[in-house]
Amino acid sequence: MANSIGKNIQISSFGESHGPMVGVVIDGFPSGFAIDEAQIQAELKRRKPGQSSVSTSRQEADEFSIVSGVFEGKTTGSPIAILIPNTNQAPKDYDALKDLYRPGHADFTYQKKYGHRDHRGGGRSSARITAAWVAAGALCKQYLAQTAHITIQAVVAQIGHIEVDNIFELDWQTAENNSVRCPHPAMALAMQTAIETTAAEGDSLGGQIACRIQNCPVGLGEPVFDKLNADLAKAIFSINAVKGLSFGSGFEGAKRKGSQNNDSGAGNSNHDGGITGGISNGKDICLQVAFKPTSSIALPQTMLQQNGETITHQIQGRHDPCVVPRAVPIVEAMCAITLMDHLLLNLKYKF
Amino acid sequence: MANSIGKNIQISSFGESHGPMVGVVIDGFPSGFAIDEAQIQAELKRRKPGQSSVSTSRQEADEFSIVSGVFEGKTTGSPIAILIPNTNQAPKDYDALKDLYRPGHADFTYQKKYGHRDHRGGGRSSARITAAWVAAGALCKQYLAQTAHITIQAVVAQIGHIEVDNIFELDWQTAENNSVRCPHPAMALAMQTAIETTAAEGDSLGGQIACRIQNCPVGLGEPVFDKLNADLAKAIFSINAVKGLSFGSGFEGAKRKGSQNNDSGAGNSNHDGGITGGISNGKDICLQVAFKPTSSIALPQTMLQQNGETITHQIQGRHDPCVVPRAVPIVEAMCAITLMDHLLLNLKYKF
Amino acid sequence: MANSIGKNIQISSFGESHGPMVGVVIDGFPSGFAIDEAQIQAELKRRKPGQSSVSTSRQEADEFSIVSGVFEGKTTGSPIAILIPNTNQAPKDYDALKDLYRPGHADFTYQKKYGHRDHRGGGRSSARITAAWVAAGALCKQYLAQTAHITIQAVVAQIGHIEVDNIFELDWQTAENNSVRCPHPAMALAMQTAIETTAAEGDSLGGQIACRIQNCPVGLGEPVFDKLNADLAKAIFSINAVKGLSFGSGFEGAKRKGSQNNDSGAGNSNHDGGITGGISNGKDICLQVAFKPTSSIALPQTMLQQNGETITHQIQGRHDPCVVPRAVPIVEAMCAITLMDHLLLNLKYKF
Amino acid sequence: MANSIGKNIQISSFGESHGPMVGVVIDGFPSGFAIDEAQIQAELKRRKPGQSSVSTSRQEADEFSIVSGVFEGKTTGSPIAILIPNTNQAPKDYDALKDLYRPGHADFTYQKKYGHRDHRGGGRSSARITAAWVAAGALCKQYLAQTAHITIQAVVAQIGHIEVDNIFELDWQTAENNSVRCPHPAMALAMQTAIETTAAEGDSLGGQIACRIQNCPVGLGEPVFDKLNADLAKAIFSINAVKGLSFGSGFEGAKRKGSQNNDSGAGNSNHDGGITGGISNGKDICLQVAFKPTSSIALPQTMLQQNGETITHQIQGRHDPCVVPRAVPIVEAMCAITLMDHLLLNLKYKF
Repeated sequence: MANSIGKNIQISSFGESHGPMVGVVIDGFPSGFAIDEAQIQAELKRRKPGQSSVSTSRQEADEFSIVSGVFEGKTTGSPIAILIPNTNQAPKDYDALKDLYRPGHADFTYQKKYGHRDHRGGGRSSARITAAWVAAGALCKQYLAQTAHITIQAVVAQIGHIEVDNIFELDWQTAENNSVRCPHPAMALAMQTAIETTAAEGDSLGGQIACRIQNCPVGLGEPVFDKLNADLAKAIFSINAVKGLSFGSGFEGAKRKGSQNNDSGAGNSNHDGGITGGISNGKDICLQVAFKPTSSIALPQTMLQQNGETITHQIQGRHDPCVVPRAVPIVEAMCAITLMDHLLLNLKYKF
Repeated sequence: MANSIGKNIQISSFGESHGPMVGVVIDGFPSGFAIDEAQIQAELKRRKPGQSSVSTSRQEADEFSIVSGVFEGKTTGSPIAILIPNTNQAPKDYDALKDLYRPGHADFTYQKKYGHRDHRGGGRSSARITAAWVAAGALCKQYLAQTAHITIQAVVAQIGHIEVDNIFELDWQTAENNSVRCPHPAMALAMQTAIETTAAEGDSLGGQIACRIQNCPVGLGEPVFDKLNADLAKAIFSINAVKGLSFGSGFEGAKRKGSQNNDSGAGNSNHDGGITGGISNGKDICLQVAFKPTSSIALPQTMLQQNGETITHQIQGRHDPCVVPRAVPIVEAMCAITLMDHLLLNLKYKF
Repeated sequence: MANSIGKNIQISSFGESHGPMVGVVIDGFPSGFAIDEAQIQAELKRRKPGQSSVSTSRQEADEFSIVSGVFEGKTTGSPIAILIPNTNQAPKDYDALKDLYRPGHADFTYQKKYGHRDHRGGGRSSARITAAWVAAGALCKQYLAQTAHITIQAVVAQIGHIEVDNIFELDWQTAENNSVRCPHPAMALAMQTAIETTAAEGDSLGGQIACRIQNCPVGLGEPVFDKLNADLAKAIFSINAVKGLSFGSGFEGAKRKGSQNNDSGAGNSNHDGGITGGISNGKDICLQVAFKPTSSIALPQTMLQQNGETITHQIQGRHDPCVVPRAVPIVEAMCAITLMDHLLLNLKYKF
Repeated sequence: MANSIGKNIQISSFGESHGPMVGVVIDGFPSGFAIDEAQIQAELKRRKPGQSSVSTSRQEADEFSIVSGVFEGKTTGSPIAILIPNTNQAPKDYDALKDLYRPGHADFTYQKKYGHRDHRGGGRSSARITAAWVAAGALCKQYLAQTAHITIQAVVAQIGHIEVDNIFELDWQTAENNSVRCPHPAMALAMQTAIETTAAEGDSLGGQIACRIQNCPVGLGEPVFDKLNADLAKAIFSINAVKGLSFGSGFEGAKRKGSQNNDSGAGNSNHDGGITGGISNGKDICLQVAFKPTSSIALPQTMLQQNGETITHQIQGRHDPCVVPRAVPIVEAMCAITLMDHLLLNLKYKF
């Protein structure tokens, strides 16, 4: 089914960018867990538009309400439903797009698939709906931390041509101190400047996010088709604009010899990125995610029209010149949802 | 669940490397389809060991039998069960490994997860079980070709440091003419030499596979959590030794500006790799897969033992110095299974 | 997972009796379908409390809003989310029940399962949440009728000891003309009197509902584990207070000989109730559902307390003396959801 | 999907009555469990044909082999695959049926659904395939008994018009001492005679099975759509020829008042049949299952032909005059599979 993910905890997403709200239903969350609403709000704040000079100027309060599954501050075992109203819509921005297919967006594919679409801001295909995933991921993060001390952090490793080397060897504690969420302060500044300059040109930038999951116990992940890396991959590729993913030494490791790339049982190397044979091996789970540059740019582009002809058009609206910094909490959320799914699954393994 | 994949057609895998057989049950295959057994056998032959100087010397006939779901040459709508006996096992090769965890293999993670494992050749974690996936994929390929003219081909794009540029721009028709399955004859020869040299050193190599899906209609893929790229990612990361995946311009595209990376509706560019917003857009679906070098090498390595101490040991057995050429039909099979799952799903979309 | 049903169309339910709302997310509904909101409201009205002298005096407007998946009156293929606010709660009625387990209710089992529960009106176990199922079922009914002319009607066949013989042979057109929804006017009157009398005694009554699905095409239902009767059974037993279900000649048929019970291919008999070998056979699908009497009665009862001791207590609150008439649209809704799930599944069968 | 059941343990069935074998893949069985193969064989013996004068004269050894998932006598966490060869087929018996649809069988519905069918003995719709379910159920029974002391026993409560009153109040220990598996020796004899007499007439009989699950802990079952009774219902209605099911007081309880039917927390009554609000309440789970008489009878019957015309024909072959005694272990198996699914699910509930 299109809009649910997870087997042991299931996240069902709904809502569109220009409907009244986006939301999520979380099914399978254990009962009796005292939730921290402030932490959910803090995660939403990390994702929300209008945070800084590198994001869209669109403002959304992104205030959520929990309408099911929590009683007197604790989960009840019932499905947890979270609603996040849409408050700052400018649907008029999209009137010109009714019969146009924006390059890089799902306009054309939705129209062909469904024969009918909400053209206002992409509707269902908008990254707006990831707000609800972040709320769900925040709950999962709390659970992972309290029950298993598992922590998840993502940072920006690359914006355009500015790329941090050996990103996993830096200290990531200061990453949230700058608007691009890069743990290398000097490169963070360069990234911020690059985004601002590119934005001023009406253009956009892509980049990479690095994510590290710490304290994951040995044994999460299924051996064949629900490998931990496979389920993380499915979750990560669900995020808008993701075009690449690697674990551990990834594409670089493909160039190596076995004697160079094997993690000896004794040493500190982590070429496997914390997952061996689809199962967590107790080391940090390390992954990198490539995002394409934002498709919505403020330059004239050739576009396909509904009638099959092309036209040169300049898209209006308030768009992110680079989505990568705002995608950091989304990557964390999708990892958290996947980890929690496997943590719950793992409870029933050994006789 | 660990051992099934797909929602509209479900592939359930079973068997271990040193049990009597590996097998697969295919549930949801449409009825009345005349199957071509010779083509299944041909695909198995592409994957089977002992094909050439670049693969293991282990021999397996990999002859299959269909024991359910086909009557008088046609599918009945019942589950299709395919059995492939294991005939050339050398379990004695593994006696020394009973209390050792081979680097890069799932020995350690299985032991910790299940508390009990079949140490002979990895058991369930062996790539031996992908033989059955290839058989299932062969059926899906036949179905895709006949019902929708969809074709799927994978080739080797890189072995170690030898990498073909612009792999998708070459003519791939001759790729199967050489033992490494690379469409660039000169580089194929260099790759073959590199593998042979590395094998002689007792070492191994990784590499990349490129895969192209042609004639995919617009509209396959779900908009949110079952995006076509997300489901392909899950299927691809299910393959042993895969450590990276990208679509279209992938990691390279992350360095570009939107004005460079957007596929204009009018032009021939395919930076999105045939999938936009999670849905096939009618262009070729293009993906690249990074494989780590074979973990089993014939050099002494430091290994963890079951008692927690390390030891230096040299693994015996007949191993592939590079799995990438044999993984070509596996990548195709997992793509075929995923495409067929979405093709069937798509039948019920529009009112 | 606890709160979703269906594979090809998935209904995810959320909300509790004394939270702000109940709701449902419908995933997989085909796009481009013009929905009839008035008909949804009409179905909700059939289920809502306070309709007549035979139901609870509690009043709920049961007005719904659709917050996702519909654009300009047509479904978009996005998940359809429907919210129904709870407006007439009297949580104080339940203060006395905080440490008590009401007989026949899920109070005890929830407390033991989850260690924590919302004691106000049963919370998640309340039949209040079926309001959202009825809304989802109304959409499915519209779809079934328009695409396949399938119609579903349920009626009351028995209240307490008053049972209509050969219920499927009556004309059901007038069933909705009386408050108990029985197509036999004289027995309907007797049923109404029985309920009123029993209510005056502070007691409650059970009964049976008969349901008929007409114009179902041959071929819905899977041969082995997703038989149409099996999936209908799962859906029907999801309804609160259901304790029995039969198809066709049911328990009566178990007394017959094969020569008496077989439906000849030629004749009009329908002992199989429209389903043979798990698959619809083109005749009317006929089923009967047994409901236990409402557990909440206004008489003193011996109850278990949280401390393990028993107490004699009289439950306060506004309860239905007989839920059977209000359950008629719920039975229809669950049948509609199941039929639509199989109708969509069936689209992909034959090559 | 058609051929799998269960979410936390998944049973995938394959095979047809006249193919080489029937089989089952069990996914999700915990690792490290020492299995008892003799007990599996014993359960298969209870189900196998040719046991006694009340069953078909067809002989099948029903010897199974486990080809995956067990190493040195213990489960490994890999999928457990069990194969049971078909050895005593008489496909010639079915030649006459190629263009005929046998009354009460799935011949007509399969032909219409799939456009193509194996006419030999029903193929996939044959109860032959339940042999593999019994093998899977035997494993689940072992697990339930060892991990939770849960036991499951079914007996025959009715054959034709011979019905045992208050079946749950009898001592069931001797039920397996007679060929009909009825715990009331005198009635067992009468049932046996009735079956033999009916068989001599070329006719068949239906009946009822009662099943009791003991020592089930409080808390199995999900509150809304995966209620324990709903999942048991789905599993039971998957069995060939089942036409009715009730829990606890069932259809009889529908006639009662709440004051009569409520189980007081204090007393010994079990009108709810061990499940309240969809969740096991700690009392015995009691259910009754109605089977229609065997459809295959040795009398001339009017049948539909493939050309749409009817014909009078007498079916040849070796059929059970009453399937109910042989269905006893099948009912137990389906209950065991369902209980184990919920037992595993329940491990992850409370925080």
